[in-house]
Amino acid sequence: MRGTMLYAPGDVRVETRDDPRIEQPTDAIIRIAAACVCGSDLWPYRGIEPVTGPTPMGHEYVGVVEEVGSQVTTIRQGQFVVGSFAASDNTCEICRAGYQTSCLHREWIGPLGAQAEYLRVPLADGTLVATPEQPSEDVVPGLLAASDVLGTGWFGAVAADVQPGKTVAVVGDGAVGLLAVLAAKHLGAGRIIAMSRHADRQKLALEYGATDIVTERGDDGVARIKDLTNGLGAHSVIEAVGTQESMLQAIRSTRPGGHVGYVGVAHGVQLPGEEMFYSHVHLHGGPAPVRRFLPELVDLITSHAIDPGNVFDLTLPLDQAAEGYRAMDERRAVKALLRP
Amino acid sequence: MRGTMLYAPGDVRVETRDDPRIEQPTDAIIRIAAACVCGSDLWPYRGIEPVTGPTPMGHEYVGVVEEVGSQVTTIRQGQFVVGSFAASDNTCEICRAGYQTSCLHREWIGPLGAQAEYLRVPLADGTLVATPEQPSEDVVPGLLAASDVLGTGWFGAVAADVQPGKTVAVVGDGAVGLLAVLAAKHLGAGRIIAMSRHADRQKLALEYGATDIVTERGDDGVARIKDLTNGLGAHSVIEAVGTQESMLQAIRSTRPGGHVGYVGVAHGVQLPGEEMFYSHVHLHGGPAPVRRFLPELVDLITSHAIDPGNVFDLTLPLDQAAEGYRAMDERRAVKALLRP
Repeated sequence: MRGTMLYAPGDVRVETRDDPRIEQPTDAIIRIAAACVCGSDLWPYRGIEPVTGPTPMGHEYVGVVEEVGSQVTTIRQGQFVVGSFAASDNTCEICRAGYQTSCLHREWIGPLGAQAEYLRVPLADGTLVATPEQPSEDVVPGLLAASDVLGTGWFGAVAADVQPGKTVAVVGDGAVGLLAVLAAKHLGAGRIIAMSRHADRQKLALEYGATDIVTERGDDGVARIKDLTNGLGAHSVIEAVGTQESMLQAIRSTRPGGHVGYVGVAHGVQLPGEEMFYSHVHLHGGPAPVRRFLPELVDLITSHAIDPGNVFDLTLPLDQAAEGYRAMDERRAVKALLRP
Repeated sequence: MRGTMLYAPGDVRVETRDDPRIEQPTDAIIRIAAACVCGSDLWPYRGIEPVTGPTPMGHEYVGVVEEVGSQVTTIRQGQFVVGSFAASDNTCEICRAGYQTSCLHREWIGPLGAQAEYLRVPLADGTLVATPEQPSEDVVPGLLAASDVLGTGWFGAVAADVQPGKTVAVVGDGAVGLLAVLAAKHLGAGRIIAMSRHADRQKLALEYGATDIVTERGDDGVARIKDLTNGLGAHSVIEAVGTQESMLQAIRSTRPGGHVGYVGVAHGVQLPGEEMFYSHVHLHGGPAPVRRFLPELVDLITSHAIDPGNVFDLTLPLDQAAEGYRAMDERRAVKALLRP
């Protein structure tokens, strides 16, 4: 089959590699209908995370079940399924508490390489959610978004305790930040402040429900949020970047007693304890337990209640994956969808 | 009047200084019935916080109202009152959300010096809670505990989201940690693990409701907590120290999806962002909004439902305040009560 490999920073190739096969009786093999490039794929692409030899890439996927292992009982051949970037048994105590990305038997999908024609999904019963029927083409991008960026933005909003009528700020205008705006809107936020300085992303944020756009960053961004909230700060702030500056911007934009939901993968972040202490904010986040939200998100998308699919502003055949990485790296695209 | 002053690390003196008087129409003057030495008073006493010239000390107090300013409407002369270490209007948006220690008009009591015969309390209507009648002598220490250490331990337990039947660990065996055990017990925790290596404090922890004692610290302490919780960590961990080691111990003792409530004043703490991210814990804390809990705590204490008063294991006349500091510094006493 064909699949994407990262050889070195900036060096993405689509190559032929062995078809995956059932290795554990709890595995499933799926034929990928759509995959995509993640903002987190850009960390190694940019050399900020080390690249150790050629690595299969991709952890977002929807597709059709080709084959299941002997112990798979609920997922069946022919179903259209959505998974997330972590395989989880969905039965352990941590999964049952809603933290499937910390499942006691968690396996990351990334190294298995979802930007490919086929994918082996471990713990298929726990990991995959089937759509009620074969979805129409128009909702496939939305379902693919649910697989990571929507689920992650959703978790950011839930972790930030977004409440009806309250004020939410979103730091980060990548796909996750934009879909956190959509999640906040769905959860009933009264006011949603998107922090973005790119016209195309501002437009999408407004479409998803943002009521205000703030273009300033850092201390100036914090000051603008304070201006917009009677000097208090937002009730809920969603952090969707993962840098020191963005984390401090999020914490400082939150009122005392408010909540920061952080879903940007932290890179080189050190949180100053004393400032945190006196800030009185709640802090929660981490790798989004997308699986917790998938059944609800699949429902919302297949019933056309929400449409997160237009976060993909570039669609390419799988063989042109390298261009998808380049376009996102250069911010020419918010998110690139790949069709095998 | 007589009052305690800190001149330099280790140098506490009780001296005559001017009686406080009404300065703002919202002030009250109270005659102190009992005050005490706080674990946080030991930071400057030990020279870990700078001491800049002679400073009045003390921020925990109960007493009788002597005089009120012209705009004080609910607090009256002759009432027995409990306050906390922060004056707050209790009417602003932040106070109404339960974060009175971040009140828009907050004033710290510390610099006013509650280890004295009299104290000026700003924002008296918002800050003070009167007992239903003059309390009997036996509940005065308990009411004094409510003023800070009990209220702080209580906030720690609430911030750590202590739930009925769940497992709680407490890092720190000072008065706040011990009373966090009492709070966790009152909130219905099923199992309460106190981390302490001092026999007298272990005894008090067991009396307050601890079910397990862990004497190990740091990584060994974390390993013990994991051993006691099927390898998962506690649902809720209360941090009542404020050092780098104790914060990491608390975070690492918490299961994914669990809650850390931190009330030890952070000193030199830097939280590693990436570890926090993958830990999946909730983090909340800060200077305890004791005022939020005072009405309930006063009820529980005056009705003898809880007795936090025996956290004071040393009672001294105010003039011997220096010995109170020494005894706590040398860990000969958990907490020293001062009688003017």
